[in-house]
Amino acid sequence: MAGTDHSKTDLAASLPKGPVIILVEPQLAENVGSVARAMANFALSELRVVRGRAQADGEKARVFAAGAHHVIDAARHFDRVEDALADLTLVLATTARERGQAKPVDAPQAAAERVVAEATAGGRAGVMFGRERTGLENDEISLAARVVTFPVNPAYASLNLAQAVLLVGYEWFKAATGGAPAFEMPTKSPAATHEQISALFAHIEGELDDGGFFRAPDKRASMVRNIRNMIHRMEPSLQDVRTLHGMVAALSDGRPGPEGRGRTYLKPLKDVEE
Amino acid sequence: MAGTDHSKTDLAASLPKGPVIILVEPQLAENVGSVARAMANFALSELRVVRGRAQADGEKARVFAAGAHHVIDAARHFDRVEDALADLTLVLATTARERGQAKPVDAPQAAAERVVAEATAGGRAGVMFGRERTGLENDEISLAARVVTFPVNPAYASLNLAQAVLLVGYEWFKAATGGAPAFEMPTKSPAATHEQISALFAHIEGELDDGGFFRAPDKRASMVRNIRNMIHRMEPSLQDVRTLHGMVAALSDGRPGPEGRGRTYLKPLKDVEE
Repeated sequence: MAGTDHSKTDLAASLPKGPVIILVEPQLAENVGSVARAMANFALSELRVVRGRAQADGEKARVFAAGAHHVIDAARHFDRVEDALADLTLVLATTARERGQAKPVDAPQAAAERVVAEATAGGRAGVMFGRERTGLENDEISLAARVVTFPVNPAYASLNLAQAVLLVGYEWFKAATGGAPAFEMPTKSPAATHEQISALFAHIEGELDDGGFFRAPDKRASMVRNIRNMIHRMEPSLQDVRTLHGMVAALSDGRPGPEGRGRTYLKPLKDVEE
Repeated sequence: MAGTDHSKTDLAASLPKGPVIILVEPQLAENVGSVARAMANFALSELRVVRGRAQADGEKARVFAAGAHHVIDAARHFDRVEDALADLTLVLATTARERGQAKPVDAPQAAAERVVAEATAGGRAGVMFGRERTGLENDEISLAARVVTFPVNPAYASLNLAQAVLLVGYEWFKAATGGAPAFEMPTKSPAATHEQISALFAHIEGELDDGGFFRAPDKRASMVRNIRNMIHRMEPSLQDVRTLHGMVAALSDGRPGPEGRGRTYLKPLKDVEE
């Protein structure tokens, strides 16, 4: 999806240090590239590759990195998993299946909160991902303090490597930033005040009275309440209130009824009811 | 990542109805395939494609669907967005950027909770995704009740189509299933009782006393507390307690010290302290 703005400052500097992403024996350069892209989406930058058979910094990885070349360029390569983990204070191992190890298991959200807490306390966390087909070996998992697994449909649990990294990055970014949407509803117009909304009610209800909308007088009160509730649920801005006044006026204009009725709408409700 | 078990029943039947995924003018068959795969990962099955230029059910889509052919086969194709949305009671539009429309904005987690609530109340929700490069058009967004956007690094916000669907599917699955990890730490052995842990403390502390570990008598109490806390943080099972007894015995066995000391370890702490 579109929306990248390279003029915007990378958020990473203002966030707690993100987890190092450690790939153990990735087989395909495409996947290393896609992992780099997923990391960049969520402001992660430190990639470590252990015994990458893939040309992890080759052309194919770069194509799949889709612009996240800074991640590929800064990636560090190791022969031993232990060396790739050496400076980390919290290592999490991702696994798709229960692997019979007596290790606490976190869903990605809980793992992400743990990673943020570790960084806030001055430590450094890493999340380890295994081979595309077979995942991490048991001895590799035993190097980690905890296991992370993904809540997926058990009948179709084949998350690919970049998708697994994407979910970890996404949850980390949520935990690090508070998880608010990237933008809020634009508010070009101030919210309408109670008095302005009351005046709108008066306008609408007056025109409906004139048009014979409330045929059963004993139902009028509850129908009015329903209409008022509908408008309240809309949480109208001042501009919305003006638009609704205009719509009601346009609909009622020229209709048979008390002359000039359409012009009372700027008065607050209490004036009209008096 | 590995872990698919096709013998397991698809969870979908036991969950509230998942959101329909609506793709508007997807350009690449690969992306439709990857979307199908991401949907299957999270037990979503209903895909609708509006004016797909891609051969959305062709060979390429199937390769990228990685086995999620049931989603491709059941996909419905439409010429008009309105027709693809006709039976839905809640439509959410995904956008990467603020699009100037006065519509409430949800992050994926809040959107997912809304979709689950809608299904629980008997309605049916759908999430609409736009073209790979340009997203949804403003008139298409105006058909939706709400907007969904993704918390991403603003300097690198290019989530691809399948990744965006993956995040929506993931959050929906979390909301629909409670978000627990796919498995918990295996508990092959019952948790140790307080008495069993106290006996372990007695064994360890006795051997450490004999070995001259507590050189400063005034520090003994706080050192003992630290050791006990380390073991409590381990949350040891009964098997772990036995393993630790064995380790202490193996370490202290044959070491100079009061004869037979290593054999007291089955007694609870209070016996030893008397």
